Amino acid sequence: MRGLLVGRFQPFHAGHLEVVRRLRAERPDAPLLLGIGSAEQSYTLENPFTAGERFEMIARAVQEARLDRIEVVPVPDIQRHALWVRYLEALLPPFDRVYANNPLTELLFERAGYRVERPPLVDRNRLEGTKIRALLADDRGWQDRVPPAVARHLGEIGAPARLRLLRSASPRPPAPGSP
Amino acid sequence: MRGLLVGRFQPFHAGHLEVVRRLRAERPDAPLLLGIGSAEQSYTLENPFTAGERFEMIARAVQEARLDRIEVVPVPDIQRHALWVRYLEALLPPFDRVYANNPLTELLFERAGYRVERPPLVDRNRLEGTKIRALLADDRGWQDRVPPAVARHLGEIGAPARLRLLRSASPRPPAPGSP
Amino acid sequence: MRGLLVGRFQPFHAGHLEVVRRLRAERPDAPLLLGIGSAEQSYTLENPFTAGERFEMIARAVQEARLDRIEVVPVPDIQRHALWVRYLEALLPPFDRVYANNPLTELLFERAGYRVERPPLVDRNRLEGTKIRALLADDRGWQDRVPPAVARHLGEIGAPARLRLLRSASPRPPAPGSP
Amino acid sequence: MRGLLVGRFQPFHAGHLEVVRRLRAERPDAPLLLGIGSAEQSYTLENPFTAGERFEMIARAVQEARLDRIEVVPVPDIQRHALWVRYLEALLPPFDRVYANNPLTELLFERAGYRVERPPLVDRNRLEGTKIRALLADDRGWQDRVPPAVARHLGEIGAPARLRLLRSASPRPPAPGSP
Amino acid sequence: MRGLLVGRFQPFHAGHLEVVRRLRAERPDAPLLLGIGSAEQSYTLENPFTAGERFEMIARAVQEARLDRIEVVPVPDIQRHALWVRYLEALLPPFDRVYANNPLTELLFERAGYRVERPPLVDRNRLEGTKIRALLADDRGWQDRVPPAVARHLGEIGAPARLRLLRSASPRPPAPGSP
Amino acid sequence: MRGLLVGRFQPFHAGHLEVVRRLRAERPDAPLLLGIGSAEQSYTLENPFTAGERFEMIARAVQEARLDRIEVVPVPDIQRHALWVRYLEALLPPFDRVYANNPLTELLFERAGYRVERPPLVDRNRLEGTKIRALLADDRGWQDRVPPAVARHLGEIGAPARLRLLRSASPRPPAPGSP
Repeated sequence: MRGLLVGRFQPFHAGHLEVVRRLRAERPDAPLLLGIGSAEQSYTLENPFTAGERFEMIARAVQEARLDRIEVVPVPDIQRHALWVRYLEALLPPFDRVYANNPLTELLFERAGYRVERPPLVDRNRLEGTKIRALLADDRGWQDRVPPAVARHLGEIGAPARLRLLRSASPRPPAPGSP
Repeated sequence: MRGLLVGRFQPFHAGHLEVVRRLRAERPDAPLLLGIGSAEQSYTLENPFTAGERFEMIARAVQEARLDRIEVVPVPDIQRHALWVRYLEALLPPFDRVYANNPLTELLFERAGYRVERPPLVDRNRLEGTKIRALLADDRGWQDRVPPAVARHLGEIGAPARLRLLRSASPRPPAPGSP
Repeated sequence: MRGLLVGRFQPFHAGHLEVVRRLRAERPDAPLLLGIGSAEQSYTLENPFTAGERFEMIARAVQEARLDRIEVVPVPDIQRHALWVRYLEALLPPFDRVYANNPLTELLFERAGYRVERPPLVDRNRLEGTKIRALLADDRGWQDRVPPAVARHLGEIGAPARLRLLRSASPRPPAPGSP
Repeated sequence: MRGLLVGRFQPFHAGHLEVVRRLRAERPDAPLLLGIGSAEQSYTLENPFTAGERFEMIARAVQEARLDRIEVVPVPDIQRHALWVRYLEALLPPFDRVYANNPLTELLFERAGYRVERPPLVDRNRLEGTKIRALLADDRGWQDRVPPAVARHLGEIGAPARLRLLRSASPRPPAPGSP
Repeated sequence: MRGLLVGRFQPFHAGHLEVVRRLRAERPDAPLLLGIGSAEQSYTLENPFTAGERFEMIARAVQEARLDRIEVVPVPDIQRHALWVRYLEALLPPFDRVYANNPLTELLFERAGYRVERPPLVDRNRLEGTKIRALLADDRGWQDRVPPAVARHLGEIGAPARLRLLRSASPRPPAPGSP
Repeated sequence: MRGLLVGRFQPFHAGHLEVVRRLRAERPDAPLLLGIGSAEQSYTLENPFTAGERFEMIARAVQEARLDRIEVVPVPDIQRHALWVRYLEALLPPFDRVYANNPLTELLFERAGYRVERPPLVDRNRLEGTKIRALLADDRGWQDRVPPAVARHLGEIGAPARLRLLRSASPRPPAPGSP
């Protein structure tokens, strides 16, 4: 049965790849499902890349690393935490264990009866999404924090210019809830 | 005709109960409608409890306090302030007066022709949602700020652990509006 | 623990009231939760009344019949059957058994581990929503198929004229899914 | 103050133009607001043209007919009839009377306190949206049922081929509501 | 570069598998992307299976048939035909040709500049979704119209009972658009 | 062919009017389309006015300034940046150039193949939405930063009182995305 790892992968960096490599090595017989969270978002400082771009980054990195049995699925947000696990169960093929480092993800899956494992974070100081997005906006020091195939893809899609621009754009306020 | 009091009740605390008691005493012949706002939200630091959990808190507290003629209705957000009063009119049974301390709620109802009364806030320094959620996350000093029946319910659902965890989770950015 | 009965109650008719009476009599110690389905719909031939109007019909009928411990909750559609039971669990206070005559409702609750009971339908030939809506549009023969308090309410809100008009309006096509 | 006429204008035909001409002639001093309903729909048999295409048809026809003081506004559906008038009030500039031949539109506006007038339908047998869409799919007999400027625009965007194709496509079922 | 084939795959049947086999044989060097349309729908007569169940059917059938380089992506509806191709471009990794037999899908992709090929339908009389769903509801004659691995999966999830029940359930009307 | 300028116009101020005047003078033969962004928002500190109120401000200011060939269209947010340009293309009549000072707007339109021009900002220090909203909340110094017709309209709708109140209301947290 599959394992599931959900992340936003903005971008898919060397830390993600190392976790995937270890999880595949630990369970060579089980496919690993990668859920691309907040799939509907893009062109914001926090979520600069479309789900399709993130899918492509993962596909290239996984091929370059000669990893197999990886399934990638974009997961749009549903905005209702209490339903999130059930939503994933309906959207994804069957999985029986979950890898997560986010405490809320852990809580929600554990309440739904799943076994949750914390994959060790790899070189967290260097390999962290927020930091790599900031380096992309500066266009320095990001290249060796992502797999080589991802670095090429980020170059092709003009990621540094996109991030620099998104950092300069004044953010729009989100819609409010109720009064 | 009914009176209406809308709140998020995260959680339903002793100040809420005291207001409800006074409103029922003032108008013993009229039912009181309690609207649970942001009903679709849960498992966030600002909105930790589901609408169903909040409904149960109110039901138990009201029974414990031997109050009657209270109707409880979950109210999901509609994200459009200009339509909010009309939305409530379609969702709720008829009401002819509104109790509110939020200035925006007052403005919206007054524009729609309702009489709005400001119920006196009870012991506001101690009895305030944000503060009680912080105490829950610390698991100290919250028990006597909620009705006893609510305290038991919060214990049963593991509220202190949930709040502690939600405080530690890094919040995800909301979806942006337009560029 | 509560029992749950979900219906659209368009309108709340004598068959509904009789079922509620029996369920309350069978379990005098347990509250009964009435979920008003498709709560966001109104002013269509299938769903002529707002959730608030349906809430009021139920409140008056239940008071007239001197039934107690009935809780009424509007339930907006979520358009995703696979999540529907979990959605109800998050929206409603705790319930442990479900009353349903719709086979899909049964299926969904049974898959989620609930005990589902089929309340006997009362005088189904006469007491059926579609038929009563047609009689309302003709303004004949509907009065004794609903509780007296509901008949008065339907008169007050001009239900026969509304139904006649909705029957004459050409329906708009719903939005399509994908190509 | 403005008058308001809401239609889907699929397409904007000679009957629509004649109504607009009469309304402008009756009230030369008041602007006329044309709301393009179901603005988010397109490429279906019932709603073949985008809001932008419909806007352009109206703009050209109005210019050709030398009519002035016409304001055109796309109006996306909100799926909640009970809120529809309030939604229009928030979306549109102020208007104080409404032109409508649809009985539901009349009902909803009259409940909200508006004066509703029924503009006489012009040559209804020939000038009716469903019929003109069928003629477009057959590519015969539609040209003289729309204003000349609209006929040219429909030619430019390949309307007959689009309609023929949409008629041949098997429709997808809409999403269901609740079980 | 990838090719894209979008279908609802309710269920994934032998005709689908044969098309996939041919497309992979024609272009052994290019991955094939299978988009699962109407991914958010399930438990209706037209869309009985969740996206996750459909994903699993495809994964098993493809493995059984020893096909490789197939990528499967659930695609929720967006309800706006005019944006559908752009939505797919943002959700999916890059693709440069599209396989489709639905005329609307062809039209939308061709307007967006894609090359669309019509894969030959295989044994269309026997292998057609509506027909196979009807046979499932009768629980006869469906087994040899789906790949063996899919037949096993349909058995495991109780598909015949689900279809029989969905056929017996009276459908709920969809939400209306505007008046 | 039209030019397009999208803004939130909260409120429509003298800087906006001056830009519109220049754009009309530069291209006297081409209509100018003004898109009112975040049209669904109102009664928040960032978006205090409804789309209808903003439409009316523009209509009055443009009439007072004797400008013609201005088309005003409310544009609700779609929350998906990657689709935003295509969404505008479907909602609006044809346009072939875009005026924008927001770098994200520029990026999105340029990727879609549009020519984007930066209209010079007029007296940016004085004429900036955030600043004018703050002055409205203080009810001082705002009158000469908006066209006279807008000042009158803001007075009629009680804008200073609304802004003061919105500033005092504690904002509600937006709904979170995924965990």
